[in-house]
Formats: sequence, structure tokens, C-alpha cells
Amino acid sequence: MSFPFVKGHGTGNDFVVLPDLDGSVHGELQPSVVAALCDRRRGIGGDGVLRVVRGRFDGGAEWFMDYRNADGSTSQMCGNGVRVFVRYLLEAGLVEAAGAAVPLPIGTADGVKLVSFCDDGEISVDMGPASVGGSTVVSVNGQRYEAVNVDVGNPHAVAFVDDLAEVGELAASPYFCGVEFADGVNIEFVQRLEGGALAMRVFERGVGETESCGTGACAVVAAAAAAAAGHEGAGHSTYTVRVRGGDLTVTIAADGHVHLKGPAVLVAEGNWRG
Amino acid sequence: MSFPFVKGHGTGNDFVVLPDLDGSVHGELQPSVVAALCDRRRGIGGDGVLRVVRGRFDGGAEWFMDYRNADGSTSQMCGNGVRVFVRYLLEAGLVEAAGAAVPLPIGTADGVKLVSFCDDGEISVDMGPASVGGSTVVSVNGQRYEAVNVDVGNPHAVAFVDDLAEVGELAASPYFCGVEFADGVNIEFVQRLEGGALAMRVFERGVGETESCGTGACAVVAAAAAAAAGHEGAGHSTYTVRVRGGDLTVTIAADGHVHLKGPAVLVAEGNWRG
Repeated sequence: MSFPFVKGHGTGNDFVVLPDLDGSVHGELQPSVVAALCDRRRGIGGDGVLRVVRGRFDGGAEWFMDYRNADGSTSQMCGNGVRVFVRYLLEAGLVEAAGAAVPLPIGTADGVKLVSFCDDGEISVDMGPASVGGSTVVSVNGQRYEAVNVDVGNPHAVAFVDDLAEVGELAASPYFCGVEFADGVNIEFVQRLEGGALAMRVFERGVGETESCGTGACAVVAAAAAAAAGHEGAGHSTYTVRVRGGDLTVTIAADGHVHLKGPAVLVAEGNWRG
Repeated sequence: MSFPFVKGHGTGNDFVVLPDLDGSVHGELQPSVVAALCDRRRGIGGDGVLRVVRGRFDGGAEWFMDYRNADGSTSQMCGNGVRVFVRYLLEAGLVEAAGAAVPLPIGTADGVKLVSFCDDGEISVDMGPASVGGSTVVSVNGQRYEAVNVDVGNPHAVAFVDDLAEVGELAASPYFCGVEFADGVNIEFVQRLEGGALAMRVFERGVGETESCGTGACAVVAAAAAAAAGHEGAGHSTYTVRVRGGDLTVTIAADGHVHLKGPAVLVAEGNWRG
């Protein structure tokens, strides 16, 4: 087995991009193959795989992002991944940034996402509306945290803390969430910084603690905006979200859609042999 | 900046191989570039870099392995690395395995190493003599361990323990060694298994705990053989050394040279852009 690949990251959330324009990769991409590709010592290494699918999809999308977690499981959406995905399309000459007055539609398992190329070189994604509501108790290292439930296409539990360091090591096992999330949940811990920015740590289901999580940043801002407005989903505002891997900018637009903006970098391309 | 690379590993000890047959990579390979290449999220990822140098070296060697640790520092020798290095030469068609009655000489900063291609597909390296002598106290997680000092081109401290799990987490900071090693030391913890095999965990200086360390396996066997023989460096014997990433076979030959045999696999090749 052998695949051409591209390696890229957005704020340290890294991906193996697998171009699959002829569909030949699809049948080979068993969970064990995804895990082998994402193995950081015996493979390429990454938080997930982004298979690049060309076709005709809902919403006029020519491109579909087939996202898999590092353990081979599927996930609806990945906010950092979609930027890396689009950076690949751009650098491969498959789409054009110049004159892109109309956002580029990208198909995902969570529906079509509209992507814009920003003047500063970053990429912005309309992640759709976030739904804030309900709460969960998260238990970590013997401490219990009240967390706000946010759905951004995938489920999040957002816990505001005074100091991110107090949470301690985010190992694989010590979590407990309420029964609300049968399929697991991504957990964000958030500290409000002076000046209004938000610092965040994230534990992604199926992955572990990562340097960044795009949908997590959106969830955090949705929760912060809802708290600021005093009621669910309200507020029209822009926040900087500081993750371990860098800064993301999240805007809640007037229509309630959450826009995630940040860097996306391709660092290598080559051939993998399994 | 852009380099062609190959990614490979030996028992999970992984490397970025940089072919540099025209010498153009050499001037670019600052420590910061090595660190960027070895970054597992923003680069290719690896425990170190193996620059492939062609020329005329001591001992009739046509090839020189310029080894750098992941943090950009240099190191004299890397036992798993030299196998991956030679696997690259073989797969690139730069050397031939067939009819290799005479071992292939490879230049390293620790002198020429003789490499043999084994019938089972593994690669064996004559690591030269090991020097066993003296002891050090290693302190980890509040426990103190008496360790045997072994030099295999680079310095090792080998501590025999009843159970590898008892050592606990091998984090970056909790070490203390005696003043014998001004440049630091690699530390191995070894558990004797039934049947005579040795299980080993290793903390490599400049890297952290790794899945495997070739010179570490040699040091461990040298220490075990010396203990079995009741005096330094004696014994002619073969041991299986079980590291986290797989099995290595170490033989102490009649002339006292230590031969390290194990797998070496190339998993990808491509271009990196810094």
C-alpha cells in the first residue's frame, strides 16, 4: 500500500492530507490504516487524516473533506482541518484565492462549510450556528468542573476556570462526563485573559489533549458570548482564542454563525508506504 | 528552504533522513532547522536527523552518517540510526546487499562502523568495544538507583531494577546523575526477564524517554555480560533486548566488540519546506 500525502497544521493541530481525486484511496482507508498513518514514529504523524474527495456535493460544493481521527474513528467536522484542507486545494492549484469574492463551499459530514481567503493570508470558515444550552459536570484529577454544553456540529463541554494550570495533566483516563454524551464529548477549559482574549486547553475525544481544536475555539467563544449577553446564543463579537499552538480569531456574526479564522500551513509532501 | 527527506525508524526510534550527496544541505542545517524538522506537529517529526554524506572517509568508508539529536545538538553515534541510514542507502540503490560478504563501512563521529545485511532482512552493526566501569547514582521520582557506567561511543548509566514499571514516569526534569558526566548521560533501566532476555526503558539525553536506543541496548548487554562474567567486559553471548518499540539482538563477540542487530524500516519519502 502506498499513498501520496501532504502534511500540514493549523495552530499545531496537524493532519495528514490524502488527495483522493480518483477515489482509489477510499477503499484502502481502514481505521488501522488511518492509525498507521497518524502514528508519530512509525507513520507520518497527525491528529487526523483529511481525505480530499472531488465530486458534486450539496450546496454546490466540488470538494468534500472526509475527516478521520487519529484512532481511525470518524468525526463530523474539524475546524482547523478544514483550513488545512483548503490550503491544500489552494497550493495544489485546485481552487483559486484571487477574485474569490464568493466563499468556497466545502462539503463535510456536518454539511457544507463556506470558506474565505483573508487578506492577511489566513483562512476563515463559517462554522454555522453554535447551539449553547445545558450543562455537564466534568471530573479531572479529582476536581469537578461545571461545563456549558455547546454544539458546533460536534459536542463540546466548556468549563471556565480561573487558571488553566490548575486543571493539571489531561491524561487519557481521568475524565467523567454526564450521561448526555453517549458518543463522548470534547472538553475545553477556558481562562479569561486581560484584554478580553480567552486562553484555552482542549481534550479531544478520540485523540487526547491537543495543541488546538477549531470547533473547540468556536464552542468556547459561543459560551463566552452567551455568558456575556446573559442568554443563549446572543452577541455579535470577535474574540482571540489563545490555544497552545497559537492564536485563533472567532467571530459570532449578526446571524449567529460562528466564523473561525486562523493560519494553515503545509510543511511537507511525499509518499507513504504502509 | 526545502529538503528532500526520507522518514524511517528502527524499533520505533525514528529519524528524518536527509540525503546530501552534493553537500548543499550541510550549510542549511542549523540547530533550529534540525529542531523544526524533528517537530512532530509542525515538521516531519523524529528523534533525530541523519544527514547522508558521500565522500572518502577513514576506513575506506564512502558514506558518512552526520547524526543530530532532535534538539539540534550533535551526538557521536546512534545505533538504531545507523541501521535506518544503511536501509536508506540500500533502498536508494546507493549500496548493494547482495554479495556483501564484506561488511559495509560507515563513517560516524565515533569512527567507522561495519554494517552487515542479515539473511532475515535485519541489519547488524559492529558498534565496537564497550567499556564497562564505575558507577553512578541516578535519582528518579524520589527513588535512587545504582547504575553501572558503560561507554559505547557515548556514555550510558545502566540501572538494573526488579520491575520497569516501578521507575514511574520518565519526565524531562527529575533526573540527577553524579558529576562524572559533564555532557550528560543516557540512562537505561533494565529488568531481567525469564529466559534470559532483558527488558529496557531508556532516557536519552537531549531527547527524553524514547521507544528504543541502540547504543543503550548495547550498554545494557555489556553491563549484563560483565555482571554475569563477574568482571568487566568479559563474556561472549547473545541477548534479546526488549525495548518499547520492539526487539533488538545484541551479541558480544569473542573480540569484545558489541554487535547490534535489528529491524530498520523506511515509511515515507518526500519534500519538506521550512
